[in-house]
Amino acid sequence: MTTELKQQTVVVSTIDEMRKISESFRGQTLGLVPTMGYLHEGHLSLVKQSLEKCDHTVVSIFVNPRQFGPKEDLDIYPQDLSGDLEKLESLSVDVVFNPDRQTIYPEGFKTHVQVDEITRNLCGKSRPQFFKGVATVVLKLFNIVRPQYAFFGEKDWQQLAVIETMTRDLNMDVEIHRVPLMREPDGLAMSSRNSNLSPEERKQALSLSRSLKDSKEKIQQGIISSKELRQNIRNIISAEPGTQIDYISICDPVSLEEKEIIKGRTLIALAVKIGPARLIDNCIIED
Amino acid sequence: MTTELKQQTVVVSTIDEMRKISESFRGQTLGLVPTMGYLHEGHLSLVKQSLEKCDHTVVSIFVNPRQFGPKEDLDIYPQDLSGDLEKLESLSVDVVFNPDRQTIYPEGFKTHVQVDEITRNLCGKSRPQFFKGVATVVLKLFNIVRPQYAFFGEKDWQQLAVIETMTRDLNMDVEIHRVPLMREPDGLAMSSRNSNLSPEERKQALSLSRSLKDSKEKIQQGIISSKELRQNIRNIISAEPGTQIDYISICDPVSLEEKEIIKGRTLIALAVKIGPARLIDNCIIED
Repeated sequence: MTTELKQQTVVVSTIDEMRKISESFRGQTLGLVPTMGYLHEGHLSLVKQSLEKCDHTVVSIFVNPRQFGPKEDLDIYPQDLSGDLEKLESLSVDVVFNPDRQTIYPEGFKTHVQVDEITRNLCGKSRPQFFKGVATVVLKLFNIVRPQYAFFGEKDWQQLAVIETMTRDLNMDVEIHRVPLMREPDGLAMSSRNSNLSPEERKQALSLSRSLKDSKEKIQQGIISSKELRQNIRNIISAEPGTQIDYISICDPVSLEEKEIIKGRTLIALAVKIGPARLIDNCIIED
Repeated sequence: MTTELKQQTVVVSTIDEMRKISESFRGQTLGLVPTMGYLHEGHLSLVKQSLEKCDHTVVSIFVNPRQFGPKEDLDIYPQDLSGDLEKLESLSVDVVFNPDRQTIYPEGFKTHVQVDEITRNLCGKSRPQFFKGVATVVLKLFNIVRPQYAFFGEKDWQQLAVIETMTRDLNMDVEIHRVPLMREPDGLAMSSRNSNLSPEERKQALSLSRSLKDSKEKIQQGIISSKELRQNIRNIISAEPGTQIDYISICDPVSLEEKEIIKGRTLIALAVKIGPARLIDNCIIED
């Protein structure tokens, strides 16, 4: 016997298996990290937080078709299951839950969960099915895995707000943990979708984080007009030829209502289409 | 000490209290009977089934405002909490969960659950908010009470279909038990809303069950045309001056799709407005 034995990662694909394992963890704490796979350091920072906080950790990998619109990038969403498993095994994650579409959405599936108001703006405007798809699959994962804790990244700020609201409104017995956005060394927000960018597009994509950084500086210099800041962001991003701005939002971080002037804690959030990818980024201006 | 001590019924109104009690039942089976109160023998038959099947039984009493439309009878929905408690105590129900509206829908509530397709017809047509309200509150009650079993009456056939679908689609770990519709000695389907009928209206309301009974006989005599049967039902009910038919549906009991001829297991379901009440009734034609 050695105490150095690394814990084995179990990969399960059925709901019954997943439930049995969760049941066997009863009395100990269980953390869930829901992902769509193609894991990067941002995902792994969520996993590490779960491993630190909880006795056991489940990472789900499921590319959820219901959160993609008909003209979106479901078909080219990057996947690398063996690479993902390697990363998760090296962190000694207990369980990877990797169901197929039929398991999550069997024939005759007809239920969805909708969060109103905070899904109207930002990504909700151009992706009207997105948050419905996210809320529904997350609720299902919570019910299948039954974690006490679940970990989500602040990169998808609006998604986090939707999941927090749903969890509270529907009395789910899960505590949501927010994990800060992670950036590449050059500032690009980490995203599985970055892998679909050409080297040229990858360079253009830096305009997102650059415009946020510039906004922070402008606010420190005393600019408080959202209109002025938005125009400045627009200028920086539009200077890159391949970019197509979806939205620039300067809003309350909780209600996601637009603000005319920067006063109190404020979220600046962007979505920009570059080549085949729609990228998002955000930063918080503290009070 | 005496073994004849009747079990005391506990009445709780907060989510925390309810959760603590459910937690104390862990390892034993728990049944939930969701009601809007003003309990009649139909409700009590659900309660008795739960008491028989489960170690512990929770009856919830909550008049759910979100399943009433703006012009519906929320304000006159009958209530009699002390009468209800007396009935439940005499059956030795463990817990009555009686939250107020603020507890179930706190300020800022913005989430709902929707089941598609099977909510389109029947009651869904004239009460477009109804099943959204029902599915949302039932999901919340499941999450608060955490029962292994929940009991619903077949009188609200479509509601039962919606709850079964939601429970399956969202991977709720609850087994739904169907309990047959109960009738007064003269045939009227039991309903809390019957108490809002005048003696005259009460008499007119008998046309619903009478028309169903007559349909069964006609089908036994070989009539298979839904059109003919619907017209016959319409004639019987319209012969009563105070009645206003909302719908007469002859449909598949699972998909709730209308049938042109009676073939295979069939549901006949009615909704009729009489005075201040909208009454429903149904029967199954077995294959």
